[in-house]
Amino acid sequence: MSGSSAPSVPDHPVGFAVEPAWQGPVTQFDTRATPGFSGGKAEGAERLVAIDAELEDLQERLFAAHHGAEGGRSVLLVVQGMDTSGKGGIMRHVVGAVDPQGVDITAFKAPTATEKRHDFLWRIEPHAPAPGMIGVFDRSHYEDVLIHRVHGWADDAELARRYDAINEFEQRLVDAGTEVVKVMLHISYEEQGERLAERLERPDKHWKFNPGDIDERVLWPAYMDAYSRALGATSTEAAPWHVVPADRKWYARIAVQQLLVDALHRIDPQWPEADFDVAEQVARLEATRVLA
Amino acid sequence: MSGSSAPSVPDHPVGFAVEPAWQGPVTQFDTRATPGFSGGKAEGAERLVAIDAELEDLQERLFAAHHGAEGGRSVLLVVQGMDTSGKGGIMRHVVGAVDPQGVDITAFKAPTATEKRHDFLWRIEPHAPAPGMIGVFDRSHYEDVLIHRVHGWADDAELARRYDAINEFEQRLVDAGTEVVKVMLHISYEEQGERLAERLERPDKHWKFNPGDIDERVLWPAYMDAYSRALGATSTEAAPWHVVPADRKWYARIAVQQLLVDALHRIDPQWPEADFDVAEQVARLEATRVLA
Repeated sequence: MSGSSAPSVPDHPVGFAVEPAWQGPVTQFDTRATPGFSGGKAEGAERLVAIDAELEDLQERLFAAHHGAEGGRSVLLVVQGMDTSGKGGIMRHVVGAVDPQGVDITAFKAPTATEKRHDFLWRIEPHAPAPGMIGVFDRSHYEDVLIHRVHGWADDAELARRYDAINEFEQRLVDAGTEVVKVMLHISYEEQGERLAERLERPDKHWKFNPGDIDERVLWPAYMDAYSRALGATSTEAAPWHVVPADRKWYARIAVQQLLVDALHRIDPQWPEADFDVAEQVARLEATRVLA
Repeated sequence: MSGSSAPSVPDHPVGFAVEPAWQGPVTQFDTRATPGFSGGKAEGAERLVAIDAELEDLQERLFAAHHGAEGGRSVLLVVQGMDTSGKGGIMRHVVGAVDPQGVDITAFKAPTATEKRHDFLWRIEPHAPAPGMIGVFDRSHYEDVLIHRVHGWADDAELARRYDAINEFEQRLVDAGTEVVKVMLHISYEEQGERLAERLERPDKHWKFNPGDIDERVLWPAYMDAYSRALGATSTEAAPWHVVPADRKWYARIAVQQLLVDALHRIDPQWPEADFDVAEQVARLEATRVLA
């Protein structure tokens, strides 16, 4: 490891960057592609392990330099995707490789009765990452413009209000020092069918299956439309979206890992200078060598 | 993996179990011992990786069977130890190997002004693990009977009240379904001196050093006395203490890992039965094979 500003050696860029002017549809992106990476599954698995050390080093520097610091920097990784798109695998294999003391994962489920009585961002804001931390959202405030659109729980005017509110919220996070990385894990309809079938085949996977998953699956085209509109409305300069092809789990993992590494390189955290006189403290420690 | 109730093959028991009638002193335990394990450093590192799969399997079963369940089981790992005793390494290398979605780490620092206006357990209770979760305390409510005793911030009567309050609190957690695993990482005075010296030698470790660490080091005998009294007063049938020799970091890690595995085996979580008709759902899924 040469230093935190030495970039890793990816075949950049990974995933598909969504430009602010993009109009969709999201189905234009190939779910089996491996943009930015020319290797196969075996090389992908090797790369995941190889880059872990870089990610760990950058995370520790971020924590050392920014934790508890006024105006300190942080990272927020937002992970969205259809059922079975591999969000859990990202949490285990990418986020899970980082020191857990520097990571704060929030899984947003269906809102509680109390949460429903507030604006949709009310339950989100408390989980914005503190300085020095990597915050991770497993689903997020985007559910309020995805499932809500698909089921007609919000009309067009309300959806437009929410897109604006999201952009303002994320701009505020960025202004406060947070690198916002938004990822859509993009799988195909066929791949979802196979992954749901596997959950039904294996008794140790039954707990992950819910009959409601099939009810949502039938609404696939409406979900793709909702994703297209949401990504188009909320991919901003400050907080752009990345569509990550996810039919190949190994690729999605190295792509999200690289997006995290890139965000940390943009912060470029450096080991802080000692705020004490090192020689003086060495002498003090020396004086305690033998227990009095 | 044969099944969750098949025990791993440790040379039991690991660490030193503190019996309820134990009177101390904690200095009777050898900080370089490796109780329950006859191998050396290389075998220890191998064992840590080998047992990870068992720990991950048990954790996933715990989550699957108990998360969100009324009266569901959970685990609370309390980690205490002097500065440099290796708490952070336990978080990274033992807890960090578990799926981060099933773990909830709380690092208790010096209490805030608001926290100080409440009873010492007020800030602890909200971090008790939810059903299905492994909660981890990096330092804990025990600080209030350790540093407080050493500095005289609490008198004997108040300390006695706190020991009782801790025992009642932990009994309540156990009654609610939590396995409480309490670990003291036990290092020697000499080992602490070497580890502090290393932090002073390496610029990338300076951020972990605080001149106040030496002020506390000078109070070592008082800390050992405070640990002895605290462990004696709060090692109960319901929530016993384990003194884990920690001069050898590799040993402390496999010992804490084994204590976690043992706690999970006592719960013996099983994959839950499907609460739906599997054949019916397979047929429903089959009917969605082609996108309409």
